[in-house]
Amino acid sequence: MAYIDLGVDEHEFPGITGPMRFRPETAQPLNMLAEILLRAPHSLPPGERELIAAYVSGLNECTFCCSSHSAFAAVQLDAGMSLVDKVRADLDSAQVSPKLRALLHIAGAVQQSGRAVTAELIDAARAEGADDVEIHDTVLIAAAFCMFNRYVDGLGTFAPQRPEDYLPMASRIVEQGYGV
Amino acid sequence: MAYIDLGVDEHEFPGITGPMRFRPETAQPLNMLAEILLRAPHSLPPGERELIAAYVSGLNECTFCCSSHSAFAAVQLDAGMSLVDKVRADLDSAQVSPKLRALLHIAGAVQQSGRAVTAELIDAARAEGADDVEIHDTVLIAAAFCMFNRYVDGLGTFAPQRPEDYLPMASRIVEQGYGV
Repeated sequence: MAYIDLGVDEHEFPGITGPMRFRPETAQPLNMLAEILLRAPHSLPPGERELIAAYVSGLNECTFCCSSHSAFAAVQLDAGMSLVDKVRADLDSAQVSPKLRALLHIAGAVQQSGRAVTAELIDAARAEGADDVEIHDTVLIAAAFCMFNRYVDGLGTFAPQRPEDYLPMASRIVEQGYGV
Repeated sequence: MAYIDLGVDEHEFPGITGPMRFRPETAQPLNMLAEILLRAPHSLPPGERELIAAYVSGLNECTFCCSSHSAFAAVQLDAGMSLVDKVRADLDSAQVSPKLRALLHIAGAVQQSGRAVTAELIDAARAEGADDVEIHDTVLIAAAFCMFNRYVDGLGTFAPQRPEDYLPMASRIVEQGYGV
């Protein structure tokens, strides 16, 4: 259970939802950021942006964020969870567009360090058709999940273990968004 | 210079300020988050919260964020830049309160990974008088700077090299805040 008293039943409010109820002042900009990056109208569909979030969260080994955003991606991608699992297991052989693969490579570098991003990674994404907003948002989604993952695990929050536990949350996000 | 065309003169808008002008939609929640975490009324004074930001940014080797938040901390702490430099060089011998030192140890763990935070680190902070909001905000400040640092460096933005280049920005932040 969490390191601080979040004032909630963590089985009812797992992962980031507990700290967000504990501190609504910071929850507001965090939810606004997630909504703009992952759900606002964009050339990259929400499922692909959630996939970037899930991929980075997997690299950071954050069970709650990886499980939840994997579910959010899966319900919004035609190929569902099998594609999410494949991307997380072996990005280079996964059936994603060359542009999305190049963006995921940038996201993987950001997960290590901002300084791990190279002009070559950017050029490779541009060569596959990525524009400046797509590159910008990929960097910021990956960076933001390096925050969300540390927030969730740094406070020792509870994460449900079964993938199906995240499906009700996925339906809610797709229908209602991140609640801003 | 930055990997994407930010549409600004980067000497006029260095570091995060360029991407924030490029994408004002995401700049708004990012500035809101910084304002609440670093400047809103709090039991930890702004200089101490900026010191946590500078410390994490130094660990992430992000020149722009470390230089700017070191300046923002220095102008708001009685002991100025010499204390900031000392904390960054050798936290355990720096002249900070035992509570702030314990919170900085938590921040240092968050910089590595959310999973690097332990119950022992939390208990140590609590033993020095840290309350739940201070622990929560320390974790989130450290996590947020793992985002800001990656955002700034992942886009390859320009960072002025001389510490004095950051002093006008420090005066502006202290007088006007993060502009939300």
